[in-house]
Amino acid sequence: MEFNIAFIGFGVVGQGLAKILLEQEKYLKEKYDFSFKVVAISDTVKGSWYRRSGLDLKRLLELVEENGNLKGYGDAIEGWDSLKTIKDTNANLILELAWTDLKTGEPAITHVKTALQNKKHIVMTNKGPIALAVKELLALAKENGVEMRYEGTVLSGTPALNLGLHNLAGAGITKAKGIVNGTTNYILSEMEKGLSYEDALKQAQKLGYAEADPTADVEGYDALGKIVILANTVMGANLSKDEPPCEGITKITAQDIAKAKEEGYRWKLIAGAELKEDGSVDAYVRPEKVPLDHPLANIMGPTNALTYTTKYLGDITIIGPGAGQLPTGFAVLSDILDINRIIKE
Amino acid sequence: MEFNIAFIGFGVVGQGLAKILLEQEKYLKEKYDFSFKVVAISDTVKGSWYRRSGLDLKRLLELVEENGNLKGYGDAIEGWDSLKTIKDTNANLILELAWTDLKTGEPAITHVKTALQNKKHIVMTNKGPIALAVKELLALAKENGVEMRYEGTVLSGTPALNLGLHNLAGAGITKAKGIVNGTTNYILSEMEKGLSYEDALKQAQKLGYAEADPTADVEGYDALGKIVILANTVMGANLSKDEPPCEGITKITAQDIAKAKEEGYRWKLIAGAELKEDGSVDAYVRPEKVPLDHPLANIMGPTNALTYTTKYLGDITIIGPGAGQLPTGFAVLSDILDINRIIKE
Repeated sequence: MEFNIAFIGFGVVGQGLAKILLEQEKYLKEKYDFSFKVVAISDTVKGSWYRRSGLDLKRLLELVEENGNLKGYGDAIEGWDSLKTIKDTNANLILELAWTDLKTGEPAITHVKTALQNKKHIVMTNKGPIALAVKELLALAKENGVEMRYEGTVLSGTPALNLGLHNLAGAGITKAKGIVNGTTNYILSEMEKGLSYEDALKQAQKLGYAEADPTADVEGYDALGKIVILANTVMGANLSKDEPPCEGITKITAQDIAKAKEEGYRWKLIAGAELKEDGSVDAYVRPEKVPLDHPLANIMGPTNALTYTTKYLGDITIIGPGAGQLPTGFAVLSDILDINRIIKE
Repeated sequence: MEFNIAFIGFGVVGQGLAKILLEQEKYLKEKYDFSFKVVAISDTVKGSWYRRSGLDLKRLLELVEENGNLKGYGDAIEGWDSLKTIKDTNANLILELAWTDLKTGEPAITHVKTALQNKKHIVMTNKGPIALAVKELLALAKENGVEMRYEGTVLSGTPALNLGLHNLAGAGITKAKGIVNGTTNYILSEMEKGLSYEDALKQAQKLGYAEADPTADVEGYDALGKIVILANTVMGANLSKDEPPCEGITKITAQDIAKAKEEGYRWKLIAGAELKEDGSVDAYVRPEKVPLDHPLANIMGPTNALTYTTKYLGDITIIGPGAGQLPTGFAVLSDILDINRIIKE
C-alpha cells in the first residue's frame, strides 16, 4: 500500500521526521517496500496545506526553517484545520504531533479518535492520549480495523515500548525498571562531578535539557507518566497517571552523592512497575542507590535505560536516547514501518 | 490462522520451547490470538511421532524427561524421518532445532529448503543455515510466500537480531559491537576475581558454560559466527564466516586484567562490524580494553550485550542472556509470535 500521510503539528518532532523521510525516501522504498506521499500538514500556528497528489516536503521544510512558518507555499489548498485535515483529506495515515496536555489530553485525544473513526492509521508521540485514554483508543482502533502506534511517548526513539509489546511478547514480563528521564539523570551526573543541584539545573536549562519551569522533570512527574504508560500498555495495568507514589530528586544533596559513591553506589531517579501476585501492578518513581556494577548505575548524562525482568529471559535492558529531534522523529518512522510491515504481508 | 507445528529435533532447546508453550498456551491464545497444535516431533535419536489432530505435548515432554527418549508414546504414526515429517505432515510451521554443523550447514540447510519449497513457515535456532546460506534461503522464503525467522542464532532469546532487523529499521545502523560470547565473558570476569585462565576455564566447564573442547569459544570463532550473521542480515554485508580477523582470549593474562583495571579499563572479547564509506562492511573479533564507564564494560559473567550505532538515534544497547534452555526456547516463541502477528492482520 502507498501511505498518504498528514502531519497534525509541524514543530520540532514533525520537522525531525520530515528530515529523516527526505533523506531516506529511496532507501525505505528499496529496503522496506515503503512508499509514501505527504498530502497534508496542518499546524495551528505555522499554517496548513493540503494537496491530494502530494506536497513538496523539501520546500515546506525549507520554508519553516527560513521563516518559522509555512506561509506562501502555494499550489495547494490552504488553511484546513486539524479535524478537517484528518477527516476530509485523502490521508490514510495521520501523525499526531501537536502539543501535549497531560491534564485533558486535548486536542490530541479528539484528533486520535477522529482518525480512528475515519479508519485511518495513527502514529503519535503525544503522551496525552496514551496516558489518559490508551485502552479506549486501542479498542477503537481494533473496532475500525486500523493500527495505532506510540513508541515515541516513552524514551523517544529508543524502542523500549515496542520491545516490551512485541519482541518480549510471551516472555512473561514481571517488572519494568529504569531511568526514563534524561534531565534528572543529567543533573545527578553533573552533581557527581562537583556541581551543586542549583548549578547543575542551570546548566541543564542552558543546554535545553530542562525547561524554564523544571517541576515536571525534577519532581518525577514526567518519569511517572512514562512508567504508567509502560505499566498500562506492556504489563496490562490500569493505573491512573497520578496514582502511584512519586518522589523527585530535589532532596538529594552533593553530600548524598559523594557518600553513595564511597560505598559503591550511585543515586539514580528510578521509575518502576512490578506485577503483584494478584495480577495488579504497583508503580513508583523514587531516587534509589544503585550498586555501581548494575547496568543502570552507568547510565550517565541524558541517556535513558529500561530493564524488563522476565520469566524466561531474566533481565533484558535497553539503553538509548530519551529525547531529541531526530530520535523522536525516528520513533514515528519506526512505528510507520511497523504498520507497513504488518499490513503488507 | 491455527499453527500446526512440527519439531525437527527435540533436544535442550526443543524441550525448553515445549515447556514454555505448555505453560503459556492459554495466555498466548487470549493475549496474542495465537493458537497451535504440535502435530509432529521428529528426532533422529529420541524417536518420531506424527498425529494429524495433534500430539499430547505434555506427555511427550514427560517421556523424554523420564526416559531420555519418546519410545512407547503410541496412538500416532511412528518413525517418520525429518524430511518426510517436513513434507508429508499437515504441519504449516517447521521448527529446525536439530544439531548445528558450521562446516556444511547440514542437515539443517536441507531441512530449511525443504520446508520453504513446501510453502511452510520456518523458525530456527541453528546457526548453520544462517551463517552459510542466509541470502539464498531468504530469497527462497520470499519466492514461496512464507516466513523464515532465526532470532535464536545470536544472543539466544535476547532480541538483538530482531531489534536490528525490525525496531531499528530506517535508523541508519553504521556499526554493531558487543559481547556476544558468554563463556569468554564469564572466564574474563572470573580472572578479574583472581582466578588463572586455566582455573576460570575449568570452572566454566564445570558450570556447563564451556564445552570439553573450548576452542570455538576461547579462540573467538563462536563470536565471529554471530557477528557475521549480524553483519550479513542486519547490515547487508556479504561476509563469509571465516573471512574477518579473529583473535580470542587465550593470550590475556591475570596481570593484563589487573593492569587494565588500575588504568580504568576492563578487557572484553569484542565482536564488531562497521559499515565503510564504500558500502562494504568490516567485521572482527578481538580483545579490547573498554573504559569502565562504557555500558559494555559492566557486562559481567555469561551475560551478552550489543550496541548498535545509528545515524538518527546514536547508540542503542541491548543487554541480556546469551544462552540457556529457556532463553533459546523463548527465541523460537518470539519468532513464532512475530509470524503470527505479520500474517494475521
